[in-house]
Amino acid sequence: MLFNKISLGGADMKFPSIPDKTPFTPLVVMELAEDTNEEAVTWLTSRIKDTQQRDGDNFLSMAECQFIVKHELDTLRARGETHVPGYPKIRLYPGKSVVRRIQSKGILVQIFPLHDKEELKRLSSMWYQNVQLSFQPLDDIRHYFGESLALYFGFLEYFTLAMVPMALIGMPYYLFDWEDYDKYVLFAVFNLVWSTVFLETWKRFSASLAYSWGTLSRKKAFEEPRPGFHGVLGINPVTGRQEPVYSSTKRQLRIYLVSVPFVLLCLYLSLCVMMVYFSAEGLVLGLHDEEPTFWTSLLLYVPSIIYAVVIEIMNRIYRYAAEFLTDWENHRLESSYQNHLTLKVLVFNFLNCFASLFYIAFMMQDMQLLRQSLATLLITSQILNQFVEAFLPFWLQKRRNKRVHRRSGKVSPDQELPFDQQVMLEADMSTYLGTFDDYLELFLLFGYVSLFSCVYPLAALLAVLNNVTEVYSDALKMCRVFKRPFSEPGADIGVWQLAFESMSVIAVVTNCALIGMSPQMKSYFPDSETQLILVVATVEHVFLAFKFILAFVIPDVPRHIQIKLARVEFESMEALKKKVMYTVESVNTEPVDKVATRFTVCTQL
Amino acid sequence: MLFNKISLGGADMKFPSIPDKTPFTPLVVMELAEDTNEEAVTWLTSRIKDTQQRDGDNFLSMAECQFIVKHELDTLRARGETHVPGYPKIRLYPGKSVVRRIQSKGILVQIFPLHDKEELKRLSSMWYQNVQLSFQPLDDIRHYFGESLALYFGFLEYFTLAMVPMALIGMPYYLFDWEDYDKYVLFAVFNLVWSTVFLETWKRFSASLAYSWGTLSRKKAFEEPRPGFHGVLGINPVTGRQEPVYSSTKRQLRIYLVSVPFVLLCLYLSLCVMMVYFSAEGLVLGLHDEEPTFWTSLLLYVPSIIYAVVIEIMNRIYRYAAEFLTDWENHRLESSYQNHLTLKVLVFNFLNCFASLFYIAFMMQDMQLLRQSLATLLITSQILNQFVEAFLPFWLQKRRNKRVHRRSGKVSPDQELPFDQQVMLEADMSTYLGTFDDYLELFLLFGYVSLFSCVYPLAALLAVLNNVTEVYSDALKMCRVFKRPFSEPGADIGVWQLAFESMSVIAVVTNCALIGMSPQMKSYFPDSETQLILVVATVEHVFLAFKFILAFVIPDVPRHIQIKLARVEFESMEALKKKVMYTVESVNTEPVDKVATRFTVCTQL
Repeated sequence: MLFNKISLGGADMKFPSIPDKTPFTPLVVMELAEDTNEEAVTWLTSRIKDTQQRDGDNFLSMAECQFIVKHELDTLRARGETHVPGYPKIRLYPGKSVVRRIQSKGILVQIFPLHDKEELKRLSSMWYQNVQLSFQPLDDIRHYFGESLALYFGFLEYFTLAMVPMALIGMPYYLFDWEDYDKYVLFAVFNLVWSTVFLETWKRFSASLAYSWGTLSRKKAFEEPRPGFHGVLGINPVTGRQEPVYSSTKRQLRIYLVSVPFVLLCLYLSLCVMMVYFSAEGLVLGLHDEEPTFWTSLLLYVPSIIYAVVIEIMNRIYRYAAEFLTDWENHRLESSYQNHLTLKVLVFNFLNCFASLFYIAFMMQDMQLLRQSLATLLITSQILNQFVEAFLPFWLQKRRNKRVHRRSGKVSPDQELPFDQQVMLEADMSTYLGTFDDYLELFLLFGYVSLFSCVYPLAALLAVLNNVTEVYSDALKMCRVFKRPFSEPGADIGVWQLAFESMSVIAVVTNCALIGMSPQMKSYFPDSETQLILVVATVEHVFLAFKFILAFVIPDVPRHIQIKLARVEFESMEALKKKVMYTVESVNTEPVDKVATRFTVCTQL
Repeated sequence: MLFNKISLGGADMKFPSIPDKTPFTPLVVMELAEDTNEEAVTWLTSRIKDTQQRDGDNFLSMAECQFIVKHELDTLRARGETHVPGYPKIRLYPGKSVVRRIQSKGILVQIFPLHDKEELKRLSSMWYQNVQLSFQPLDDIRHYFGESLALYFGFLEYFTLAMVPMALIGMPYYLFDWEDYDKYVLFAVFNLVWSTVFLETWKRFSASLAYSWGTLSRKKAFEEPRPGFHGVLGINPVTGRQEPVYSSTKRQLRIYLVSVPFVLLCLYLSLCVMMVYFSAEGLVLGLHDEEPTFWTSLLLYVPSIIYAVVIEIMNRIYRYAAEFLTDWENHRLESSYQNHLTLKVLVFNFLNCFASLFYIAFMMQDMQLLRQSLATLLITSQILNQFVEAFLPFWLQKRRNKRVHRRSGKVSPDQELPFDQQVMLEADMSTYLGTFDDYLELFLLFGYVSLFSCVYPLAALLAVLNNVTEVYSDALKMCRVFKRPFSEPGADIGVWQLAFESMSVIAVVTNCALIGMSPQMKSYFPDSETQLILVVATVEHVFLAFKFILAFVIPDVPRHIQIKLARVEFESMEALKKKVMYTVESVNTEPVDKVATRFTVCTQL
């Protein structure tokens, strides 16, 4: 990573310069258990100090320094030690990550970077405190929280802006409630094209962001393995550095023979649960219709409540299983670990959220009900999320702060705390578990908007409202509620791009189907339903083809960036070439201008 | 190109060593008009001699040397000259390709590389002369004819092998003429999966070929512009070399505002022609049925003959138009020029060949007729192609050789000719116009096999037979019939990959539709045709999804090659890093181990 940073320095010679004061405030805190053996502490500190002897890279943002410290801790692997000094029971073997070990054994409680009060104040004032119409300060966010979080907020913003047109076009449908399906068709068509364009252009935008941050051409093959990655110590074939190695075929087998079947099984189960729910729903409805009493009317709510609870439980269990499996797949890179985990959880969540909607739309063919459930889902999820994930914890955190301040004799909460108190305060804050849930939220939102857009045009508007508040609540929670997260370098939003694209493909199918089922359409083909279906199918295929052509035609990286990248490559090739030239000189046998002699111009044939 | 060669030398340190004798036989011949002005000749020779002063690269195959000479001639651009010396009328302006100019003005008749008798004898004996069951000597072909031709033959071979299983599975259907559609379904399913896998694995295979030939990671941005490329002299933003520049936006406009509409128009026209043909067909048929006489039975053939002629004419005209347009689009790279041209011609040919089959299959729904026309198309095209493109010209060439030999007093044709005679002989040979037509042939063949595979399983077998002979006839024509072509470096089969993949996607749709229309299928859903269609549509979507997942899961480049490539990149990055390290050293402010001091371990919080 350090290495890449430098070589990318070659790409664009501007580095973010380091704030002067940071060298004197600690970046990262490592909380050990209270009764930790002294010997262990001294050993650990000395071992960590050793790792600091590496080639200099001092042009880093605070976030990057913290990332490096974290990285050095993660890649701190046991060498000679057979056990943790002072803890003969806790064995170590070569190549085993030390920090992981002592953390799992409860010696190490947690590691977390410290907030930087000044920086934070500056950032939050620019970001969310005074409501103004302006873009988020992505560069500052990146500087404080790292690339991957900045990319999340960038995507959130881009997504919101992209949905504004949909919302505007969608509004009149709601206001004058146009039930006219020709109009819906227009709206759907617009949506499909728009979502494709939006996703493609986002790729370009994120590429330019990543380039300006110097993370665009990070080479995965050069990355150090993730701490969880285990295997016999070997040599990385690319970098020639010593690190654990694990055969990729084994991994493939684990993925395709265990993980994939497991996921499919889970999907099947959740489908069964849904079917049970719907049958229960029908049963209760039947009961209520027979002799409607107060109790039966109460009973009406029971199935959906149970279903919601069951879904929640299933989600949690599945999440654990997925994490376990992905960990067991033993991916070398953090990124690929994340991608595989994301994909697993994603598929399951997708099914749980949309299966019922699909059932309502295509089995029951009840558009009114579909609209209702869409609206309820959108609004409730919106309110719940915002409240549960940001405002409630924010309020709790505020109270805790107050308490700490009172304990330390300070009255006003914005007074500077003594260092130790500050550390304690932040140590108690809850930990941010990564961007996954935030992306998932957006993903589902995108689903609600695009999948049934031609039935419920208002969705886009609600989504926009949601996102606008989302920006603020997320900013708030990042700055005030959670421990400062370790920054993660990232070049793109990874598997989420794929997820959103697949969603937009599915959207084509669903929208075509919905329009095909609409009474107006049916009325166009009164005599033969077959013909209608054929027409719809053709239209759908045309759309899909169009989508793929569009995605193929729009280049993923803006031209000016392609050129810049090509130049780096050219330069480095040149640099290498010089090296090679020397090495091959000895083999030179034939004078250069022989090529000239090997060429004749003959006039009169 | 030279540059890349060297820097790729870094990738794999083995260069193809140059045969000792070649330095003393001329590689390339440049035929000037007989009455060429002496002054011009001397000027030209001197100018060419100048270009030979470049950094040495002497580890090249003969083909590569010829390519370089050709390349140097092509990139020979006018500097000060206002006109060709001795021809005041023929103006030159800076950046204008000299060779192109004098060629268009008829001073330069042709440029062609010479065959190397020994090499050729060795190659042909290994390749086609004695029929043996073995793979083609791709490395030798590449060594003699260059990468792109070797890749063509590689693909031809791979394609043939890939179709053998289809052929084997298809045979029983023909032998025991199974009319049972369940079996057809099986066959179709196998075909779809198979074609996907075959295309994906080909990518991997070609990648390893290209890697072993050192062309895999040729950077387009480093390539010199193609001779036809014109524009004001400027600086290439990547390499910093002086060359003509042309705004890409202009090119985009030309493509999307002129070329694309033109192509669409042509497609529409050819569709109209087809409809006219079918109506004429029907008319004649009607006439014949009214009072069948000898004349009406003759009349039956008239429409198809006219149609064939018209198609042929349209093809030729369109081909010229396409070439003109693509030239006018003014692409910087030969490769992108080729891709755009190919794409244009491809689409048109596809329509002309398959539109009628589609009409028969889905409008007339006459499977018997479909089978007939498929068989006729396959067999006739096979025989015609082989004969017209290889054996006939081979025979003519043989006669010409005889004549030359007789003239030069030699009796037996395998005696060595004096050099000038040899040159004259080869100068008279016809020129090979590139792999386009050969690929097109394969592409159409693939279409016949895959699009209607479930109706005519024998197609695969015929295709295999065709390809086996094709290998020999193509080898023959390359070695004996044509002037030796200039070698083209190439990393893959370019736009043809895309073409074959799209074809296999279309094949999914057509096969599903065909099976859906089959009487057996209809009999499964006697009551509602709607249900049948829905089922078919679902199945089709599942297939398409499966195809894309498969293509996504199979990596395009084999792992061991990925690693090797990563290593080059790593090495060159390292090389660059060293350079950068110096440049940034001055900015160093903070001692390295500061990072260590910025880290605290605190026990009792």
